[in-house]
Amino acid sequence: MKEKLTVVKVGGAVVEDELQLSQLLRDFSAIEGRKVLVHGGGRRATKVAAQLGIETQMVNGRRITDDKMLEVVTMVYGGLVNKQVVARLQAGGVNAIGLTGADANVIRSHKRPLKDGIDYGFVGDVDKADGEMLSRLVEAGITPVMAPLTHNGQGDILNTNADTIASETAKALASFYDVTLIFSFEKKGVLSNPDDDDSVIPQITRADFERYKADGTISGGMMPKIENALSAVEAGVSRVIITLATAIDGKHGTVIL
Amino acid sequence: MKEKLTVVKVGGAVVEDELQLSQLLRDFSAIEGRKVLVHGGGRRATKVAAQLGIETQMVNGRRITDDKMLEVVTMVYGGLVNKQVVARLQAGGVNAIGLTGADANVIRSHKRPLKDGIDYGFVGDVDKADGEMLSRLVEAGITPVMAPLTHNGQGDILNTNADTIASETAKALASFYDVTLIFSFEKKGVLSNPDDDDSVIPQITRADFERYKADGTISGGMMPKIENALSAVEAGVSRVIITLATAIDGKHGTVIL
Repeated sequence: MKEKLTVVKVGGAVVEDELQLSQLLRDFSAIEGRKVLVHGGGRRATKVAAQLGIETQMVNGRRITDDKMLEVVTMVYGGLVNKQVVARLQAGGVNAIGLTGADANVIRSHKRPLKDGIDYGFVGDVDKADGEMLSRLVEAGITPVMAPLTHNGQGDILNTNADTIASETAKALASFYDVTLIFSFEKKGVLSNPDDDDSVIPQITRADFERYKADGTISGGMMPKIENALSAVEAGVSRVIITLATAIDGKHGTVIL
Repeated sequence: MKEKLTVVKVGGAVVEDELQLSQLLRDFSAIEGRKVLVHGGGRRATKVAAQLGIETQMVNGRRITDDKMLEVVTMVYGGLVNKQVVARLQAGGVNAIGLTGADANVIRSHKRPLKDGIDYGFVGDVDKADGEMLSRLVEAGITPVMAPLTHNGQGDILNTNADTIASETAKALASFYDVTLIFSFEKKGVLSNPDDDDSVIPQITRADFERYKADGTISGGMMPKIENALSAVEAGVSRVIITLATAIDGKHGTVIL
């Protein structure tokens, strides 16, 4: 039987709020067994960009990343947010190591081609996460803390969505471990009624998802999240949990199977 | 007999100049055997700080690091410079991994106490570099690329001089390897005549150093550099070379024995 490994993804909003971050780091430290943390940092990047006089442009929820913005996200995701989280985890006894995809070549990507005439700039779509290298680090007692940055193997850092980093990492590790992937966000789970925060759907399969899409229960930004989760499960991840950032113990939220 | 390992330290000026950086990365890639790169980034940090409206204050060549400046150096050293170097090395076939002292707990430090009434702020004096963890990474075929940042084990990142990072890393690895430590800078080596760039002193021992200090041949900023080098040799590093950033092949410069 494979050992258990948990991949937890937290968004920028959590990382930037001291109270939420403290709780998250405590909860993450308490997760038993092997684990990986993936973080965002978009709000912080937007703030630093503004301080540098660089305007943030979003299209379909994605950041247009020109060369100036690439420097900002490389600084903020790879430096500021990543190193602060690593140092805090170390203080809690977790032997964390901060990684972008360039570090030890763990995630290779290619620059996104023009899409519907939109040039996203230095944005990377993932080609391959190196599960073997990641598992080697994990087996050395190290906990990877992954920033949403990858590289193209030609010397360029590329900006990559943190949800994608999390699911690609979970998939790559599924050959070696019994992987649980936890997407934390600001709701208790996938809700059947958006106005009722307690209407958490306990479990969703591919068939359920098709039905919920058809009847309109699930729509908007939740659709790509669940699609992403289902594709992870279909690629060997044992289960995906969508839950509150303050409830990453695997006992709450919506389970995607 | 121990395997050879080379630690190369490059200053911020080299990392920030595209021509010099390209050559350095080519030369570093060409070094055979196990290796570690340590980089600075001070000029870039000063520039980004200025863009953010944060004034840089230096005392005795050291940066006063208040909480705002700590964010800047964490971004610039740990993110911008480190990740760009890592991605470039990856493109050259070197399996680099970027590290601060917090990553995998490789360098622990403590906040510098007031010195002569000067509060340097979030500046770390090194307690211990973990040679065993570094050698484990190196034995996995990985080349550490170290930013001048450490941590205190209580959740704080601390700003640490890159020369110190290089010598502490070299010392910690000396139990495992036959270590050559190369300090690259803007001169061909230690000069006997500061007005003659070709007056490189080929070799300096502790006895030579005392003599050169006494007769004034060596003075100013070169003194702590050589003191640092001698202490590394006295702690087990096989040799320290002070040389041009474009001549890190171990065949040029001043050798400290």
